[in-house]
Amino acid sequence: MTTISFARGIPAPECLPVADLADCAKAALERDGSVALSYGSTLGYAPLREWLGEQHGVDPTRVLVTNGSLQAFHFVLDALVGNGSRVLVERPTYDRPRKILNSAGVELVEIPVDDDGLDVDAVELALEGRPAPAFLYTIPTFQNPTGSTLSAVRRRRLAELVRSRRQPVLEDDPYGLVRFEGEPLPSLFELEGGTDVMYSSSFSKTIAPGLRVGYAIVPEALASELEEHVASTYITPALLSQATVYEFLRRGLFEPNLERVRGLLKARRDAMLEALDRELAGEARWNHPEGGYFLWLELPEGGDASELLARARDVGVTFVPGPDFGGPPASARLAFSFVSPAEIDEGVRRLARLVAAPAPV
Amino acid sequence: MTTISFARGIPAPECLPVADLADCAKAALERDGSVALSYGSTLGYAPLREWLGEQHGVDPTRVLVTNGSLQAFHFVLDALVGNGSRVLVERPTYDRPRKILNSAGVELVEIPVDDDGLDVDAVELALEGRPAPAFLYTIPTFQNPTGSTLSAVRRRRLAELVRSRRQPVLEDDPYGLVRFEGEPLPSLFELEGGTDVMYSSSFSKTIAPGLRVGYAIVPEALASELEEHVASTYITPALLSQATVYEFLRRGLFEPNLERVRGLLKARRDAMLEALDRELAGEARWNHPEGGYFLWLELPEGGDASELLARARDVGVTFVPGPDFGGPPASARLAFSFVSPAEIDEGVRRLARLVAAPAPV
Repeated sequence: MTTISFARGIPAPECLPVADLADCAKAALERDGSVALSYGSTLGYAPLREWLGEQHGVDPTRVLVTNGSLQAFHFVLDALVGNGSRVLVERPTYDRPRKILNSAGVELVEIPVDDDGLDVDAVELALEGRPAPAFLYTIPTFQNPTGSTLSAVRRRRLAELVRSRRQPVLEDDPYGLVRFEGEPLPSLFELEGGTDVMYSSSFSKTIAPGLRVGYAIVPEALASELEEHVASTYITPALLSQATVYEFLRRGLFEPNLERVRGLLKARRDAMLEALDRELAGEARWNHPEGGYFLWLELPEGGDASELLARARDVGVTFVPGPDFGGPPASARLAFSFVSPAEIDEGVRRLARLVAAPAPV
Repeated sequence: MTTISFARGIPAPECLPVADLADCAKAALERDGSVALSYGSTLGYAPLREWLGEQHGVDPTRVLVTNGSLQAFHFVLDALVGNGSRVLVERPTYDRPRKILNSAGVELVEIPVDDDGLDVDAVELALEGRPAPAFLYTIPTFQNPTGSTLSAVRRRRLAELVRSRRQPVLEDDPYGLVRFEGEPLPSLFELEGGTDVMYSSSFSKTIAPGLRVGYAIVPEALASELEEHVASTYITPALLSQATVYEFLRRGLFEPNLERVRGLLKARRDAMLEALDRELAGEARWNHPEGGYFLWLELPEGGDASELLARARDVGVTFVPGPDFGGPPASARLAFSFVSPAEIDEGVRRLARLVAAPAPV
């Protein structure tokens, strides 16, 4: 029995535009090999920085292209945070930044997330605390792990709040473009104007994760300040990937590929929602994200997702229990991004039998 | 007037095998795109780890392939060093690790380097100090910045010493294969057996630096211990570069390319030695490295390389003053790797006029 993974937050293999990237990699080196194969582009491959600057309406000097956006998170963190700093994060939130912040000796101030995203009242309250938070880390769109999205109303309120307080924010937006339906919402970065809101994203969900091409848009002073730190970390990022992504963009392959990926992922989300409706209606609750990789499952009161996972493994299905992200014991992250619609159907069936069955004492 | 750079320790553009790498990048993705474009290879692209393991006679689980070897230095540092640790380094040594160690709050214990490399008596003495050094960082072959090489006799003595003391060592060997003449010497890693000596190198000098493919061979326990830290830093390294390097190796392109690169660099070193002999004999001293990127210039007693650099810039030639690497004021690193033999000839001519001329008061 093959294990069906609702744990892996990665794209299904058919999402990866392998043949196009193979052509782009070759063309990128043929066109600009002497730059892409040498040192020197500390803050990223210049044509890609320019493209991203244009895309986001900022000067390219404000764009850092890094080996994946987690690396950009580290750079921002190192620049903004000292030992004992307070950092606001969502609860639950992406486990890697949580762990990184914890091991940086930072005080995590956790703000609840519901189906409309971050609780802005709670943010406002937290901003009263001292010392002032070094930054707020938020994933407002198709959040990891919950799949929830900050509503238009809360988005505007949050943007207004951070603008009036000059509160630094890191908006992490890897999933925003992976929307299957509904109207796109403006980013916090756009609403606030990009003065105190920094923005990070990547091509991991829109092209391919193994390329490790992420980026951040930061204030110009911070970008210059980071240059030496970046050079001291890895001299120059991996430019072949960055030049390949640029070639992919330049050939106009990005939009058609994104449409294709959206279709593949929507079919998976639909399969999961249908199977949940059929198998677990009345026994558990879940949300209906309009995009992204994940949905959030809430087991009946008193349920224990970690205990459920132990049993689920035995029947060949896995997921990540909510507590791994700071969520409650009865919650779980289900990723629909990786396995096929048919596997999703079967996986939910397996899971449902366990939710219905009494847990062993 | 174009500035002639003896400062840039990077390969001349004609060293880069652009067309072959373009083919290899395409073939690598066509052959193994679904792996190379996804997450999961935390410690590096598996076929490359296997190739390197075989090359160095170790299990591939001991090989970490990273985004350039400086990143591997950070990982080893984070694992071995706490605040207040003592670390032995050469004096002078590569400026980046020096800075990184300084900002890590480490006590640097500096061991002199002469034309036969590290002073092993001084190492022995330093090992008596307490606390025991976390590790010794050394570049025994064609060292950056001096170009000097640890002699066969000292190599064996140092290997014996660290073996008997169980003293961790990080042997950094990016230049070892870039030998133009003379017999290759065994690495410390080979002489000691790889128990306490870790080894790092990269494909920056043998294929291309912009690929950012470096690696380290560490004890197996350390490799497992590092896995979570690596994932927490960048999830997965940039795999397109690693798969491209693997394809380059697998096609048998490495050795012929290395021969070609050796030829290009030897011509540059020869041009520099000839010009120095002609222009500066009796006025300065320099060594005759059998490979690598650099040679070490010693100005007459009382000379000041920083002051010389200021004047040199005005006549269109640059280099890095020795003090940047912890060397004496009258020393300088001259890189012959980047500019052409004709430019080297002209650059040394410009420099020599300044050395001969009295410095302004």
